[in-house]
Amino acid sequence: MSGPDYGRSFAALRAACPDEWSAYTDHAFVRGLGDGTLPQASFLHYLVQDYVFLVHFARAWSLGVVKAETMAEMKTCARTVDALVNHEMALHVKTCAKAGIEETALFSAKEEVANLAYTRYVIDAGLQGDFLDLMVALAPCCFGYGEIGLRLVGAACNDTPYADWIATYADVDYQQVMVSFGDMLDAAVIRRLGADFKATPRWAQLQGRFTKATELEVGFWDMGLLGA
Amino acid sequence: MSGPDYGRSFAALRAACPDEWSAYTDHAFVRGLGDGTLPQASFLHYLVQDYVFLVHFARAWSLGVVKAETMAEMKTCARTVDALVNHEMALHVKTCAKAGIEETALFSAKEEVANLAYTRYVIDAGLQGDFLDLMVALAPCCFGYGEIGLRLVGAACNDTPYADWIATYADVDYQQVMVSFGDMLDAAVIRRLGADFKATPRWAQLQGRFTKATELEVGFWDMGLLGA
Amino acid sequence: MSGPDYGRSFAALRAACPDEWSAYTDHAFVRGLGDGTLPQASFLHYLVQDYVFLVHFARAWSLGVVKAETMAEMKTCARTVDALVNHEMALHVKTCAKAGIEETALFSAKEEVANLAYTRYVIDAGLQGDFLDLMVALAPCCFGYGEIGLRLVGAACNDTPYADWIATYADVDYQQVMVSFGDMLDAAVIRRLGADFKATPRWAQLQGRFTKATELEVGFWDMGLLGA
Amino acid sequence: MSGPDYGRSFAALRAACPDEWSAYTDHAFVRGLGDGTLPQASFLHYLVQDYVFLVHFARAWSLGVVKAETMAEMKTCARTVDALVNHEMALHVKTCAKAGIEETALFSAKEEVANLAYTRYVIDAGLQGDFLDLMVALAPCCFGYGEIGLRLVGAACNDTPYADWIATYADVDYQQVMVSFGDMLDAAVIRRLGADFKATPRWAQLQGRFTKATELEVGFWDMGLLGA
Repeated sequence: MSGPDYGRSFAALRAACPDEWSAYTDHAFVRGLGDGTLPQASFLHYLVQDYVFLVHFARAWSLGVVKAETMAEMKTCARTVDALVNHEMALHVKTCAKAGIEETALFSAKEEVANLAYTRYVIDAGLQGDFLDLMVALAPCCFGYGEIGLRLVGAACNDTPYADWIATYADVDYQQVMVSFGDMLDAAVIRRLGADFKATPRWAQLQGRFTKATELEVGFWDMGLLGA
Repeated sequence: MSGPDYGRSFAALRAACPDEWSAYTDHAFVRGLGDGTLPQASFLHYLVQDYVFLVHFARAWSLGVVKAETMAEMKTCARTVDALVNHEMALHVKTCAKAGIEETALFSAKEEVANLAYTRYVIDAGLQGDFLDLMVALAPCCFGYGEIGLRLVGAACNDTPYADWIATYADVDYQQVMVSFGDMLDAAVIRRLGADFKATPRWAQLQGRFTKATELEVGFWDMGLLGA
Repeated sequence: MSGPDYGRSFAALRAACPDEWSAYTDHAFVRGLGDGTLPQASFLHYLVQDYVFLVHFARAWSLGVVKAETMAEMKTCARTVDALVNHEMALHVKTCAKAGIEETALFSAKEEVANLAYTRYVIDAGLQGDFLDLMVALAPCCFGYGEIGLRLVGAACNDTPYADWIATYADVDYQQVMVSFGDMLDAAVIRRLGADFKATPRWAQLQGRFTKATELEVGFWDMGLLGA
Repeated sequence: MSGPDYGRSFAALRAACPDEWSAYTDHAFVRGLGDGTLPQASFLHYLVQDYVFLVHFARAWSLGVVKAETMAEMKTCARTVDALVNHEMALHVKTCAKAGIEETALFSAKEEVANLAYTRYVIDAGLQGDFLDLMVALAPCCFGYGEIGLRLVGAACNDTPYADWIATYADVDYQQVMVSFGDMLDAAVIRRLGADFKATPRWAQLQGRFTKATELEVGFWDMGLLGA
């Protein structure tokens, strides 16, 4: 099964961990979003944790600006931080508000271990490594949600209560951001590793980061299901 | 001489280093901007270095998102990074383009030691310390330019060729951003040190950072004058 | 139940989270070490994970040198890194070697989520906060093992196969290192927050870090039990 | 002029910036150490600044432990931090004490801009880049002092008052540490870039860091001469 076209780097990273990628993007939680069978309690539990996730994910993308080496890299990271902090998180706030959960409660929600492990792993990838280490650790969440959104919007039951969630990630705006991120990632990879990047010693190490972050995504969905 | 009202923290920090603050905000370079006697070569030299400065200053503000502990802190830092990377730097690009200097030349301009010392000191303040260490190291540049802009716009010769530069920082938009930053800084200080922050042991250490960054601003103007 | 005398800061932090501290230091895994009922497979599983833990714990202590603001703070952190990397980890290597597990296998062992979450939380405490944020996140592991060692060495069955492990942490050398760390922590706290540190706004936030790290220790023992 | 054998990476980096390397290792300050004409005031001024330098240099080496990806890399960095903090700085303390300068005065000495620029550039190389970015920024100081020590010990006047300084870096212990660092650097480079590392896109960027740090060394000697 091929994925959406978010560039060469993503295609290579995704193709090299098919089991983990499938466990993530075709998780029971995802299927439940598509066919509407996901319990509302699970979804809200996920949404609260995802708000906390986005706080730290925005911190990780900001670390991307700190580590960038070109203006294009800086601009992409800066725009993403702005989009996360001033837009995507607002959607969570709105949806949670409808369910009676206020933003201050979101910000101070107790972070589950699967959540904490994931975001801090990504941030530490940035502290320990370089710009690429951070980008490949950020990639599975960004690209995976884009892929899930695209798949579900075509296949989902018309009456799933999670149509808004699906629309957010299937949306042409989100998809365009992913294409831009993919372009920037390709340029960043080629700039540092050369056009034949898959043949370099570093690629295996970067693949390890991508695969690890994908596994942590699986753990995040697991947490969503169990937490209800 | 009192400064603009950018909050209690700034007022206290500024008042405790009057000599350094005056050496910075009333520097010969600044006077030359106001009365138009600054050589064009000095200004262009400064502008190229300032572009490189803003690259690393944006990195430092991004580190602010990494270190923030409230949504308000995150949002202020994220907006500032966006403003720097997508707006303030564009002004430099435009002004330099008129003088025949392209953006790629700006990004790769050789960084002078006074420039490098300043931005890396600020970034290291963020790595070594907490959010406050970083904010007080960022403060002299932000607030000082606001104060200089306000003073010069009232006193400058009508025919200085640097009216655009002055207008940028005297502008109500820039001033409003400074007021917001001042509010956020006050809240951040009170949240961590309490309302009586000036009586805490940490305040002297934060003052040291602010004074140091102010001295580095003086060095930056010196470099501007000498560099032509 | 009072703990060992590792200074005022530790005493205050420990006293404010009695349930978490007890869940950690009196965990079933710990009791199994003391009475010898812990399965050998659980112990080896723990030991392999603990080796990986120490790799990242040493990285966190090194970040302490980066964040230190006095020579005493630098020296304590530098000595601890040296002790971890060149001594404590050697014990793990020796014990694991007896069980047929080589060091390269240890270094590349798959890190469990409870393990990853803990060390990356500590490292991120250092990146996000200041020296104190990092120290209070490092404290539960260091002081807790000292307390566990002291308790078990007095109460353990004579024939537990884990006598070596217990002796390591009950040992006068380890205890002396903890006393020194406690002294340094007290000095670091008083230097930044004043002698009446418990009354400052920051103390609650530091307590939150200590409590969180203590909870993550509980998760680490849980992982040890389950992993066999 | 060929340099000492500290490995392939150093040889390549050194050979690619002959002018900067010569300006650094054959600086007037260095010649003055060798023939004894360096004023005592210059030497003391340098020594005080070098103490502050070593504080931040030790912080940078500690960041190396944070960024290391193998046990060998961690151990080399940890040992270097320990050597700097507990040994090399002690020499400065002793020499300065003879001249009536106490250690607390050293630690709080006002850092000159050339000093600050250098160490913070190195630390930021570690924050922005990966382990290699940090190592090549640390390399000129370490290897350069080794090279200077070797050259001066063979050529220096017998009666230079700086024989102790020269002996420190010509010493077989210091030289052996440099050989080990060179071995570790070669292994780190090959591990990430492959045996043909000079042909990779990243090498030019790493060379840029090495050359920049070498230039900052020249500025440090300049500061030593001027400061008296």
